[in-house]
Amino acid sequence: MTESSTPQHETPVKTIAFVQYPGLTPLDIVGPLQVFSLLAQLAPGYATVVVGERIEPMATDTPLSLVPSHTFDTMPDPHVLIVPGGSVPTVAAMADEKLLDRLRTAAARSQITGSVCTGSLLLGAAGLLEGRQANTHWMYRSLLAKFGAIPVNERWVKDGNVITAAGVSAGIDMALHLVGELAGQDVARKVQLFVEYDPEPPFGPIDWEAADPAQYAPRLRQRLHQALTDHPALLARLTA
Amino acid sequence: MTESSTPQHETPVKTIAFVQYPGLTPLDIVGPLQVFSLLAQLAPGYATVVVGERIEPMATDTPLSLVPSHTFDTMPDPHVLIVPGGSVPTVAAMADEKLLDRLRTAAARSQITGSVCTGSLLLGAAGLLEGRQANTHWMYRSLLAKFGAIPVNERWVKDGNVITAAGVSAGIDMALHLVGELAGQDVARKVQLFVEYDPEPPFGPIDWEAADPAQYAPRLRQRLHQALTDHPALLARLTA
Repeated sequence: MTESSTPQHETPVKTIAFVQYPGLTPLDIVGPLQVFSLLAQLAPGYATVVVGERIEPMATDTPLSLVPSHTFDTMPDPHVLIVPGGSVPTVAAMADEKLLDRLRTAAARSQITGSVCTGSLLLGAAGLLEGRQANTHWMYRSLLAKFGAIPVNERWVKDGNVITAAGVSAGIDMALHLVGELAGQDVARKVQLFVEYDPEPPFGPIDWEAADPAQYAPRLRQRLHQALTDHPALLARLTA
Repeated sequence: MTESSTPQHETPVKTIAFVQYPGLTPLDIVGPLQVFSLLAQLAPGYATVVVGERIEPMATDTPLSLVPSHTFDTMPDPHVLIVPGGSVPTVAAMADEKLLDRLRTAAARSQITGSVCTGSLLLGAAGLLEGRQANTHWMYRSLLAKFGAIPVNERWVKDGNVITAAGVSAGIDMALHLVGELAGQDVARKVQLFVEYDPEPPFGPIDWEAADPAQYAPRLRQRLHQALTDHPALLARLTA
């Protein structure tokens, strides 16, 4: 008899997998990807992958196209799975049963499932937020309850093995938090140093008084209609 | 005689152009690109493009590849030109005379030339920082003086029509500042709201005591040697 070909003293690599799909908001994926890629450089035992349906360029909501590194079929089992968000294309993806199946399968293979921005709406549509506290982009927060989630207004919220961040740039904060959980605060602070994340928003913090959800309700409604015109049942559920 | 085919009451679109090259740090480009793409959505008269040598996937320092939207030959004259940075591949690009020529030509056609992170080393190598205050990633700051620039430790610094940001995530702050300059503070604050840029670094601000440049000098030296082994003259100039 022979020993296993993988020596037991080798710690298996923990993979942080980011899901890519057409039309997403690239900062949602690149913020936390950069953080975890630095983790992989600075500490042994971590790797990052970007997973899509095919390894080919996909449009984003900017002029940049992105190409994933793996398909869902070739990705290693992720320790952490992160789903980024976006605007109309992400809302439309809530009706993409093939993508939702991919998310369910990948989440079942991961230890932690996370999202940035409206990525949590995809987790919700996949049935992964039932009974859980969750957040999303502020303009979409009311939709979380449609999937049995409990909307929470925090930069990120972890409930069991599901962590969801607020909009777009919040993925950076969530990723640093997860690096701290995985590798300790000292490593997280080193990653923060290397991405020089010492924010100085030039006009100060957001004035949340200016972001009255009621004021933006028509814009949200318009995006839902634009994205889900061919999916009247889901549209009705979200706009009820 | 006919009038010009462009009605004079139409304001020409101001293009914000981002330079892409192989091996860059994607957060350097995507942070400010997302900010300016929101400007283009929220205010009339702005557009963003990503410019590379060819419209094809290029590797980054993460598993993600990026595809630009334009070549240098097809890009419109930029109002703002922004050059992102990176690690070893960016240092190597300081010896890429073709890219440096592209940067000189594009900068001459732009109103404002900017950089994120070590992108300023490319501006320096192209001769565009002579006598100007500039910043870069903290680990590389001492190199700026080799190109006649005056190193400044600020989140971003504008000197004449050249603006340079600190490392990686600082491009978001710089971009919001530029949006404020171009379109006013109200628009900039709206962009900030839509990217939900209300940072909460989970371990607080960077502990700069831990980032002693002398401690990191060997790492910087190693990267320079790794990147410029085939360019001994430039290597000697940077390590003198």
